[in-house]
Amino acid sequence: MKSEDRILLGHGSGGKLSHNLLSKLFLKYFQNEELSKLNDAAVLQCQGESIIFSTDSFVVDPVFFPGGDIGKLAVCGTVNDLAVMGARPLYMSVGFILEEGFLFSDLETILGSMRAMSEEAQVQIVTGDTKVVPRGVADKIFINTAGVGVPLRGAHPSGQNAKPGDKIIINGYLADHGITVMAKREGLELDLELKTDSAPLNHMIIDLLKKIPEIHVLRDPTRGGVATTLNEIARQSQVGIKLSEKALPVSPKVSAVCEILGLDPLYIANEGKVIVITPAKHADKVMTVMKQNKYGKNSCMIGEVVDDPKSRVYMETLIGGQRMIEMLAGEQLPRIC
Amino acid sequence: MKSEDRILLGHGSGGKLSHNLLSKLFLKYFQNEELSKLNDAAVLQCQGESIIFSTDSFVVDPVFFPGGDIGKLAVCGTVNDLAVMGARPLYMSVGFILEEGFLFSDLETILGSMRAMSEEAQVQIVTGDTKVVPRGVADKIFINTAGVGVPLRGAHPSGQNAKPGDKIIINGYLADHGITVMAKREGLELDLELKTDSAPLNHMIIDLLKKIPEIHVLRDPTRGGVATTLNEIARQSQVGIKLSEKALPVSPKVSAVCEILGLDPLYIANEGKVIVITPAKHADKVMTVMKQNKYGKNSCMIGEVVDDPKSRVYMETLIGGQRMIEMLAGEQLPRIC
Repeated sequence: MKSEDRILLGHGSGGKLSHNLLSKLFLKYFQNEELSKLNDAAVLQCQGESIIFSTDSFVVDPVFFPGGDIGKLAVCGTVNDLAVMGARPLYMSVGFILEEGFLFSDLETILGSMRAMSEEAQVQIVTGDTKVVPRGVADKIFINTAGVGVPLRGAHPSGQNAKPGDKIIINGYLADHGITVMAKREGLELDLELKTDSAPLNHMIIDLLKKIPEIHVLRDPTRGGVATTLNEIARQSQVGIKLSEKALPVSPKVSAVCEILGLDPLYIANEGKVIVITPAKHADKVMTVMKQNKYGKNSCMIGEVVDDPKSRVYMETLIGGQRMIEMLAGEQLPRIC
Repeated sequence: MKSEDRILLGHGSGGKLSHNLLSKLFLKYFQNEELSKLNDAAVLQCQGESIIFSTDSFVVDPVFFPGGDIGKLAVCGTVNDLAVMGARPLYMSVGFILEEGFLFSDLETILGSMRAMSEEAQVQIVTGDTKVVPRGVADKIFINTAGVGVPLRGAHPSGQNAKPGDKIIINGYLADHGITVMAKREGLELDLELKTDSAPLNHMIIDLLKKIPEIHVLRDPTRGGVATTLNEIARQSQVGIKLSEKALPVSPKVSAVCEILGLDPLYIANEGKVIVITPAKHADKVMTVMKQNKYGKNSCMIGEVVDDPKSRVYMETLIGGQRMIEMLAGEQLPRIC
């Protein structure tokens, strides 16, 4: 049996292998226009109206970490997937897979997080399912959420819409989520007060789209990090993307951990970040609106869309060189969300 | 630490403990009209139109069994949850949790089943997510599906609508799914050609509702079996339910296995069955329409709705006595779907 005949951790990384699994296997079996767009959510027609539909599963280890837990991720992840499609999230389903012996008190903490996040995001959890498996068959708790939203009229952000000349903006520091979870899991005694950035971004994004409906692309850089997300957009839009290394926002704490462990924050998962690609003439206004929101105070411009090389991402480095930025290959940090 | 502080297998049985988990814990954290109805799916308002939304996770062991696999269950389960709400299923999301090392060839077989079932049911799989966890963190593959459908106009089946005098009909033999999976898992050499009943029932159900929109209740008796489902309906509708033991359809093969192992087919999961509760005057027409469908050839009347005892189910036994039929307590067969 060859290793390529089996599922690897990298197939769940959000990077190159995930991309191959989706484009080579899933699209072979399920052919329809929506799935083939490879967006974060699907646009459906129901009774003549459009609705937006998305799903995500969460298997993070540990279940609890500084600033959040698996329940917070499960609500915010699906809320953000809908919001970056230009939708107002309204309803959510939740499916729990619980390991026999899981503590009720832990489940209650997780349900409390889900309630808090669904209240902040103003989405209703309307239907659900619970399965329990024997000890050792799953690890503590896995959660799936699916979400339904309605599109904001007049805004049509899509991964296919980036145009040369557009500016690329992000709402704050990179890699906070991934590094926080990794540090907690590995028991690193860092005394750095790391915290996940997990947050529901829908109110900020909707405010942004109402004020600047011309925004071309919105995407949340979760698994695979900013590097992978920008590569996906470059391919979908058939454009080049130029990043500026000196503009990339990384907190000193996260930067220190990344340096020690040899991790690149560009490839680490975020759970409360959005990449905004906007026509240059609206860039200042985008920055102003984002900075008014509590989740956008550290917004900054990190690069721009260029003509060439098509479907590729490169970075102007601190020392004045250029470096190609590829999609994540393999898996850096399994079970990060 | 007391055992009641922890999740038990029975919390995922679909029976009494599942019911307690839902009504005491989940409804404490998530309060809204739809969730509190405890139906198989939620009715949502989007842009002034109603849509129906449901989710289910699948953790069946083994993944492959006679007549089906986890992929077939995942599509049919959500299709049927929507159909029994009086909805035409249109779209589905799918979330995979894969164990590192899972065979690609097995995944392809499962995707093939999902495609076949989604084609038969005429639903589109439009969005998805894949997570991979390290070896031993999950068992092979878990699947979550969520589904979106639109309500048939004029039909309003609901667990709350059963009325004294109504007839209770089921579309065939009990317990085929649960007994098949259990026999395969335990390696029983039965030579009985057992087969799951897993099937997409939406076309039969929609045909039924179009011809007899007066039907009061539709419900698929999955985990916890017919006994648990009827108890739920008796509580929701505040009525009594009388079953006739001699009318209960159990195949000789399944009956033999149940007898040997001391299992009661009334409590075993079905994955291609629907319970139809209809005003008596429409019962013959319901039977005629169901028998015309390939999934309804063995339809039969198994009981009726009565005034008393309210919220309870009882059975007239073969020897002329009466026996109370309670909800499933504890767990008979974990990982049955």
